[in-house]
Amino acid sequence: MTHSSIASWWHRQDLCYIDNTLQFAARQVTELASQFATPAFYYNANRVTEKLSDLHAALESAGFSGRFKIHYAMKANRFAPLLTHMKQTGLCGIDACSPAEVEHAISCGFAPSDISFTATSLSRTDLQQLSQLKDVFINCDSLHTIRNIGKLCPGRNIGIRVNPEIGIGYADNEKLRYSSKASTKFGIYREQFQDAIELARQYDLKITKIHFHTGCGYLTQQLEQWDNIIEACSWFIKQIDTITAVNVGGGLGVPHTESDIPLDLSIWAGILAKHFGDTTFNIEIEPGDYLVKDSGILLLTVNSVETKKSTLFVGVDAGFNIAVEPAVYGLPFLPVPVKLKPGKMQTLTLVGNINEALDIWYRDIELPPVAEDDVIALINAGAYSSSMSSNHCMRGKFKEFLLF
Amino acid sequence: MTHSSIASWWHRQDLCYIDNTLQFAARQVTELASQFATPAFYYNANRVTEKLSDLHAALESAGFSGRFKIHYAMKANRFAPLLTHMKQTGLCGIDACSPAEVEHAISCGFAPSDISFTATSLSRTDLQQLSQLKDVFINCDSLHTIRNIGKLCPGRNIGIRVNPEIGIGYADNEKLRYSSKASTKFGIYREQFQDAIELARQYDLKITKIHFHTGCGYLTQQLEQWDNIIEACSWFIKQIDTITAVNVGGGLGVPHTESDIPLDLSIWAGILAKHFGDTTFNIEIEPGDYLVKDSGILLLTVNSVETKKSTLFVGVDAGFNIAVEPAVYGLPFLPVPVKLKPGKMQTLTLVGNINEALDIWYRDIELPPVAEDDVIALINAGAYSSSMSSNHCMRGKFKEFLLF
Repeated sequence: MTHSSIASWWHRQDLCYIDNTLQFAARQVTELASQFATPAFYYNANRVTEKLSDLHAALESAGFSGRFKIHYAMKANRFAPLLTHMKQTGLCGIDACSPAEVEHAISCGFAPSDISFTATSLSRTDLQQLSQLKDVFINCDSLHTIRNIGKLCPGRNIGIRVNPEIGIGYADNEKLRYSSKASTKFGIYREQFQDAIELARQYDLKITKIHFHTGCGYLTQQLEQWDNIIEACSWFIKQIDTITAVNVGGGLGVPHTESDIPLDLSIWAGILAKHFGDTTFNIEIEPGDYLVKDSGILLLTVNSVETKKSTLFVGVDAGFNIAVEPAVYGLPFLPVPVKLKPGKMQTLTLVGNINEALDIWYRDIELPPVAEDDVIALINAGAYSSSMSSNHCMRGKFKEFLLF
Repeated sequence: MTHSSIASWWHRQDLCYIDNTLQFAARQVTELASQFATPAFYYNANRVTEKLSDLHAALESAGFSGRFKIHYAMKANRFAPLLTHMKQTGLCGIDACSPAEVEHAISCGFAPSDISFTATSLSRTDLQQLSQLKDVFINCDSLHTIRNIGKLCPGRNIGIRVNPEIGIGYADNEKLRYSSKASTKFGIYREQFQDAIELARQYDLKITKIHFHTGCGYLTQQLEQWDNIIEACSWFIKQIDTITAVNVGGGLGVPHTESDIPLDLSIWAGILAKHFGDTTFNIEIEPGDYLVKDSGILLLTVNSVETKKSTLFVGVDAGFNIAVEPAVYGLPFLPVPVKLKPGKMQTLTLVGNINEALDIWYRDIELPPVAEDDVIALINAGAYSSSMSSNHCMRGKFKEFLLF
């Protein structure tokens, strides 16, 4: 039995109300809040395992049994216990984008051979560190990287990150567009692709993989574009006869609002099968958001409830600096009370404790009565929050917990 | 003698080219770069002192001699050596917005009585910490704060942060608007002002100050609006006969582009004189950007120079996560080479080493030839950079130096 008026599109077995109390990862969230205080992120390890299993099942059903790999994009959330858990599942490797990330993944238990590396604007120091880890697979996103890897480790197998000039993303958000008609810094374009092949040949590098990553946050309604992207990337694959694997990047999204239709993995994997079913390529994917975003919640305590002019502002004990997606990328984190109280629904604006105009968690949300000391959960807070957090205004403290 | 084509609107005695080498704070920047590597922020202590002196001179000329105070908004840059230097000048106190900032300011040498505190959504813990520091002056931005300060320290003198529903800011940037027709979380509106006065009376709090902060980044062309803002705030001042000081907040800006006209301090102070010249109020201001933004530069090393499709991308050794203003707020940091090389000007796009689409330092800038290992300085990097930095992609390392 739950409050009749609260939105419920996000309810699932491990995140729902029972007797008006929010449950997460088989705990009463009210208890978590009283035991550990706020602000605190909680991650459901089993949800992450389930989503990894779902991806495995979809790829197996689509005919890729024995020839696919999942690399978790650790920039989404590098909380060490979470990484070690993911290693322990045996269901994924790591997608790293800096030498420090590679080292951190290894410190959490991953083997160098579990790690796929793709990054941009590599320094000499970056390149030297990478050259020492011979089992880390490097996708080169520029002629610069091919040239330098060639000099430091001739003979190595490499991938090439390509740019198909076609992108996909959350509500066409320009801040999240990695590939489009306007040139971006990512990947090698058709115009420079022959130079890339020639450069690899010069240093005896064998190009065994084509990599592309063309946006983030796609759901079922973007899958037609997903099909077009793979079609556009096929041109690159056909230019090289040493390709054994295709890394189709990340970008798989999760719903943020009631109107978002969750990603249908069978259609998604079916599109991969359409393009690669008749090949012998290994297929690799690099999900970040998809694995951890809706596996995490952020708990905040209400400090103040006050009408200013005609708006009801509810102020909490942390601000956008510990979870930048709502303020910086416009991606909403739905706020839900951990305890639903009886009473009339009210429209309020949830705000943080930072002296910045953009420090707004959610505008005009309808919620049951909320009072000081109540705890609010923000859902979808598991990705790009702690990993991008800052100590702005010296309000950067938070806790993180991995729940099993 | 400098390269004839490089923009020079930003040249000044402590930041200019001599013989095609960038000078900053009486150093050759090429030398700084070779001694300490990059990424690194450098702050010119003497420039900060000068700007403080300029503000003092303007306020004295406008007739406020002996009755004004400057509080540096430390959220702009809390680098400890910089704070201690500012304390030593004797020219300013501190504007703090969290208890941790208050403690940090004190750790750098400021006395509690040097500190003005204004913040939003204060927790019980925040309020308790503040109540222990009896000499820190608190501006209450909500009924919630008045009520709780009243309970914890009845009889104290307080300020009230008001919201005049009229704002000012960098190019009308919504992310930097603190006060406007749409309700914001900041300050107390006219509608709730009588309640605020009543609440203060109830707890025997004496309201001795009116505070407002209505945006950031204003320059000479916004001073008409500055006049309107003060006019709008006068209504609040007139409601209370115990007012002895008016804190007009921060927001004083610095030019970001050639077309920006620097803030004329004599006009600015003249507007203050127009409103407060005939009163006995102490006038307080809280500049952040104005003091430290153009006192700082960020040095970055070029990792790669490469045409992708038809765009020349220059990739450097740090990204938006160590200085968020260009990517998040759209405020440009002009890139200038520390050594001007002979040769044809070229149009390039300067990008960072973070795997995010928004990680672009500057699009389509005309610069003399740039090659790998060259060092680029970003000007205007002294505020809201290190203080808001994150370790995203584990690329969060940088150095900071205070130069005298």
